[in-house]
Parts: sequence; structure tokens; C-alpha cells
Amino acid sequence: MALIVHKYGGTSMGSTDRIRNVAKRVAKWARAGHQMVVVPSAMSGETNRLLGLAKELSPGSSSPSLMRELDMIASTGEQVSVGLLAIALQAEGMDAVSYTGWQVGVSTDNSYTKARIESIDDAKVKADLDAGKVVVITGFQGVDEDRNITTLGRGGSDTSAVAIAAAIKADECLIYTDVDGVYTTDPRVVPEARRMSTISFEEMLEMASLGSKVLQIRSVEFAGKYRVPMRVLSSFTPWDIDINEEAKSGTLITFEEDEQMEQAVVSGIAFNRDEAKVTLLGVPDKPGIAFQILGPVAEANIDVDVIIQNVSQDGKTDFSFTVHRNDYQRAMELLEKTVGPAVQAAKVIGDQRICKVSIVGIGMRSHVGVASKMFRSLSEEGINIQMITTSEIKTSVVIDEKYMELAVRALHRAFDLDQDIEA
Amino acid sequence: MALIVHKYGGTSMGSTDRIRNVAKRVAKWARAGHQMVVVPSAMSGETNRLLGLAKELSPGSSSPSLMRELDMIASTGEQVSVGLLAIALQAEGMDAVSYTGWQVGVSTDNSYTKARIESIDDAKVKADLDAGKVVVITGFQGVDEDRNITTLGRGGSDTSAVAIAAAIKADECLIYTDVDGVYTTDPRVVPEARRMSTISFEEMLEMASLGSKVLQIRSVEFAGKYRVPMRVLSSFTPWDIDINEEAKSGTLITFEEDEQMEQAVVSGIAFNRDEAKVTLLGVPDKPGIAFQILGPVAEANIDVDVIIQNVSQDGKTDFSFTVHRNDYQRAMELLEKTVGPAVQAAKVIGDQRICKVSIVGIGMRSHVGVASKMFRSLSEEGINIQMITTSEIKTSVVIDEKYMELAVRALHRAFDLDQDIEA
Repeated sequence: MALIVHKYGGTSMGSTDRIRNVAKRVAKWARAGHQMVVVPSAMSGETNRLLGLAKELSPGSSSPSLMRELDMIASTGEQVSVGLLAIALQAEGMDAVSYTGWQVGVSTDNSYTKARIESIDDAKVKADLDAGKVVVITGFQGVDEDRNITTLGRGGSDTSAVAIAAAIKADECLIYTDVDGVYTTDPRVVPEARRMSTISFEEMLEMASLGSKVLQIRSVEFAGKYRVPMRVLSSFTPWDIDINEEAKSGTLITFEEDEQMEQAVVSGIAFNRDEAKVTLLGVPDKPGIAFQILGPVAEANIDVDVIIQNVSQDGKTDFSFTVHRNDYQRAMELLEKTVGPAVQAAKVIGDQRICKVSIVGIGMRSHVGVASKMFRSLSEEGINIQMITTSEIKTSVVIDEKYMELAVRALHRAFDLDQDIEA
Repeated sequence: MALIVHKYGGTSMGSTDRIRNVAKRVAKWARAGHQMVVVPSAMSGETNRLLGLAKELSPGSSSPSLMRELDMIASTGEQVSVGLLAIALQAEGMDAVSYTGWQVGVSTDNSYTKARIESIDDAKVKADLDAGKVVVITGFQGVDEDRNITTLGRGGSDTSAVAIAAAIKADECLIYTDVDGVYTTDPRVVPEARRMSTISFEEMLEMASLGSKVLQIRSVEFAGKYRVPMRVLSSFTPWDIDINEEAKSGTLITFEEDEQMEQAVVSGIAFNRDEAKVTLLGVPDKPGIAFQILGPVAEANIDVDVIIQNVSQDGKTDFSFTVHRNDYQRAMELLEKTVGPAVQAAKVIGDQRICKVSIVGIGMRSHVGVASKMFRSLSEEGINIQMITTSEIKTSVVIDEKYMELAVRALHRAFDLDQDIEA
């Protein structure tokens, strides 16, 4: 018997028929002797419908008082979901009860529409579980110290589920999604991509932030902070699939170093084609130059990903960074008109047709030569590397976007990630 | 400057366009210098949609735990409304904030789906009003002492509005509805029916319970208990109608005896055709007989309206009462099979084709001969009276339903309630 948290997305909650299937699946787990907490998202489309109504009436500002009302409205989507799921569980013969975030003390800061969970009062949930109840709790939301309803932002239900799992010290938090796990890379690009049965928390963080959009990144951070074992698995399996099979399916995100022993040096290949590159050429290499460049960029609310400054020659250096492709025009304009002249750059150049490809693996820590193997592999394909950055468990390169698929496939093969594809 | 509560029904909140009009109307009142609290219902159709989803999943029981979830779900309709209205008010340049019942301490008992308000914590609302904010509060709902969400039952938003008005000691509670006030009788039956500019609380209670479905009866009881001046007025006037004209429109439900001085002896004619009559003939007249008859009826959850027991002759009496027509078959079955034999009734008879017509008026208290004038008027129309009951401010008769319109028109004329109809 274990203490288990299930999280279901909006698609799984999309109709009463689907909610009934979720209830049957949860009931199966409960009947197997597990203590169950369930965190469902709003029915698919509901949050958009509600925010659409709000937008029609909105004064067009983004004042805190408007944001507060958006949270008041959007949070109802999950409240309806928990009530419906509790009813469906009762119809399955379960003793089920639903709670909103404020009812079980999910305390957050007061950053409306993007609040952060500060604490969860687990007393009520624990008491219900001990009384044999299935407890259904709203995702996505909490309450600030002045009793205002807050939401955690899109995808926040993943974070809620993990935070609740951490608070009640759950044995595992199962995130049911529309994919059946985390892959070594995107199977649409590399058909030989393999589902990983386990991935380390650090690797998952790198994979998630690099564009493997399986999990909300904050939920992974939370899981790491509180060491909550987290499993990503498919919500499309039949509800009556054998529970032992289901319990081992998907991908387990783990915190146990020893479980990594058998792992490959490189676990996966991530990529992102939503980036653009800008470069200031011939910048006088003086202290504070990086801040003089990136300060105004940050002030303009342009997110920066890769940053590269190479050693200087003749007192001049080249400074490059990547931004989201949507921000490219704004970034170029800012550099050409303001920042470039201010730092006496010789020239500003940019390129939208780039992509970033990364190898990720906790095994890289202790293995030399991984990066050079990556570079050799790309070179063999005739792919020119424009930028390089590295971290403890990740090496990323920026290349021409037309080579992206080629690079991903080559690296996937080079690091022995390919699985045998059955015909 | 006054402290005013506005209550708007689901039709007024039925679309974003209509919500915008509500906001404009409220803003007009606020700009005129009034402190404003607004209690909107859920958008029309929303509560039914939510409960429809719940019904699809329901186990078919009516356990408290199911009822709890229904309240969890249904209460979101009003939560969305308050958020949207607050946003619309902000778009009008108002400093507006919305609250759910639990956020402003609307404490109820734990009778899910039909809870009763026990107290309201007015501190937060008062502080906001003093800070110049328009405060929007969910109707229909509250929270019990264990932090469970409760709802007050259909039409509960009227009650919420009055309860909030009582808690903050509002000068007037304006109930915006789809009728423009309380009439001397139903204008569909009597075209000469006249809108009353004022009606006493007691008369309104009698009118409401007798089928003038303008206001939820509990809201009137609440208004009476806390002496909240309450006005029923039309939500169909243009929002930019002159505020002085609007403030005097509709019907004021009042508690000031002296305002009644000028009133007619009879204020209105109420009627109800949803009743049926059952009679136990030849019941031995012994102590406790009424309880022996009505105890089992109450246990079977059959509501009883008029009850008549006349003086006995030869130790035998006839015992009659009326029930809702929907309960007629069950009531007859109960009397014929169980109650009748138990009390040794000679015979059980019933009639579904009856109606109840009442004259209501606080002036009846001090005027003799009002009832006899009623009976004479009916007699002149050849209408036979089957049952009679009287109270301080009401006299009701049960008659054959085919005479209902005739009786109502005759009484309306007899008590000088007709207005001049312009051609």
C-alpha cells in the first residue's frame, strides 16, 4: 500500500464520459489498497472560454486588480472539475471528497496569474486519507494571505500535484498526459527515439527547458526541491489496464543517484527552433560591458537564452546571445539604435534562421570527451557550429536551422540512443 | 449619499454585453455619490449547465457527500459572474473588487443545496467601501464552519443580497428583476392590475407565499427580520435612465407603519392554482387527531398549505387540507391506505380541480367587514366557496379552479384596486 497522487490534464477531463474513465482508473488504484489524492485540470477549453469572457469586458490594462479578477474567474474551471470527479468517484462506490486550494491551505504569494506556492496545510487531506477517502484537489490555484484566490499560471496543475505530493509525502506523483513518457528526443524527428524508463531530475530540467514540453518546468523544480518521485505516463491506456503494468509505464523522474549507474553518458537530445541570434561585433572589451548590453535587453522584457562572449583580441570582443524568435525584431532594433552605439560596437548582425541542439546527460559529469564526440559527429555531417555553450550535464550548439533534423538524428545515433524499430 | 445594495438576476448577467450594461448602471449610482455593493446571479443557464454535467455523473443517490459536491460545482457560476462584473466595472473606471461568500465570511449551516445564512462578517466590505471601492459579492452561497462551500438553493441570490444589506446596514437593497414591481394582482389575469409603489413587509410575505413569484420568500423574511428596506424594480430600463427616477421606480417593501396610513384596506389579490384538496370525512373527534393525520403526511415530505377542521357534530368531524397538485396522488394514497383507516375516517375524498384566491392587506387588521365583502362579491358572481381560512392580514378561499380568473377580477374590482386603463 502506498500514498499516490494522480494528476490528469484537461483532455482527460474533457467530457463526462472521460471523467467517468478517470474515476474508474482512480478507483482501480484505490481498490488495490493505495491511498489516493487526485489533482485534475479544468475541462479542456474551459479556462480559455472563461478568460475569453473576461477579455471581452477587460479595460485593456494589466493592473493587479484586473489580474486578481482573472484568477477569481479562471480558478472556477478546476473547481467544477474536482466536484464532477468526486461525484463520478462516488458513483464508483468510492468515498470521495473534493477541495479547492483555499480549503486545504494551498498558500501562495500574491502574484496573480503566476503565483508561487509557499506552503500546504496537509492536516485535512491526511485526515481524510486515513478515513479511507479519495481526496480530489483543484490544481492551478491557491490563496494568498489576504484570502484572495490566486492561480499558478498555465500548466500550474502539474506544479500543484507535485506540491501536494511533497506536502503529504506521497510515494509517487503520477502525471497522466497525452504522451506515454519522456523520449530520448522528439520521435517526430527521430523515429528511432526511445522512451526512457527513468530520467534524473537534473536531466529532466534540461530536457524540459530545452523544449521537450512534457511537463511544466516549475513542477520539475518543485519535485527536485522536495525529492518527490514523479512519473509521466499516458492517459490514453484503457482505464482497466493491469495496475502493475501501469505502475511501471511511462518515465520515472528520479532523485536516486545510484539508479543512474546503468545510464548512458548522454540520455537525450533536445532542440529548439524558436530562437534567433544577435551579435555585437567589435565591442571594446571593458569591465561591465555585458551588463551594459544585457541590462537594456532585460528592461525591454526580452528573454535571453544562450549568451556567449569570447576572449578579446586587440581590446575588442564579439558579444552574442539568442532570443525567442518573436522578440528578434525588437532585439535588433534595440541593439542597432541604442545599445550598439552606447557600447561603441562596430556592427550589429543577426540571424533568425538558427536552432539550438543540445545533448543532455547526467553521465557527462564524469566522462571527458563527450562534447568533442558531439562536435565530431556534427562535423562529419558537414554542419557548421555557430555557438557553443556548456553546463555540467548539457552541451548546446547553435546551428543553421536547416540542419536541425540532420543534427538531431546524427547525435541520437552517435550516442547510441536509437532503438531497434520493428518493421 | 447612501449605502446601496444592487442585486441582478441571471438574465441581466446573461452575456458580456448585458454585464457591461449592469456595470454602467452601477457606475452611474457610484458616481452619484453612493457607496455600492452589487450581488449578481450566475449567467443565465450556467447553473443548469453545471448541474446537468453533475447529473450525468451522479450515482443517483442524494447523500450529503453528493450534495456537498453539487454545491462545490454550482457555486462557481456566481464566482465567474462577480469576477466578470468587477472587470466590467474596472473598464468603467471604477475601483471594483469581487468576493466569494467565504471570502467575506458569509457563514451558513451545513445543509448543502439549501443552506441558511447564520452570519456575515462585514469588516472587509466596510473597509473596501470606505476606501471608495465598488464591492461585488457572490449571491447564492456561503461557507460552513468546516470551510465547505454551501449554496442557499434556487433564488438564493435575493436572500444573499438582503443578508449582506442587513450586515452592512445598507440604506436600501434594490432587487433588479424582469418585472417592474409588485402588482395588486397578476396583470395577465386582470389587465387593470396596478403596480404598488409601496407594500408592507407582511403583505409582501403573504403575496409571495401565495404565488406572486417576484421575490424569493426567504429574502423577504430576512428583510423583515433585519428591517432592510427592499425595492423590486425593472432591469429592463435603459442603464442611463435618470437616477432620481430610477430610485423611485418599482415597489418599495417597507417596515414603517406610518407609511401605510394612506393604503387601501386590501392591497392585492393573490392566487394559486397549483393546489389540490383532500378531506377525511367522519373522523372521531379526539385529542391528537390532527397530529395523527398530519404527522405521517409530513414524514412523507408532503407540504401542506391550508388546513381546516370545523367544529364537531355527534363526536365526528371533517378534516381537510390542501397540498401541491404534484403531491396529490401520493397524499390520497397515504390517506386511503394508512391514515384514513388509522383514524377511523368514514371516507376519504379529494379534488384536484381547485384553486386558492386570497385578499391581502395590512389594512384588514383594523377594518371589520372585509371578509364578508369578499364573500358577498364571490356570491354575486355565483362562485361557491369550498374552504375558508383567515389570518390577520389575509383571507383565503378555496374554490373550483374554473372560477379563478372570474374571482380574481371580481375581487380586484370590489376592493377598488383597478386602475384606469388607457386605450
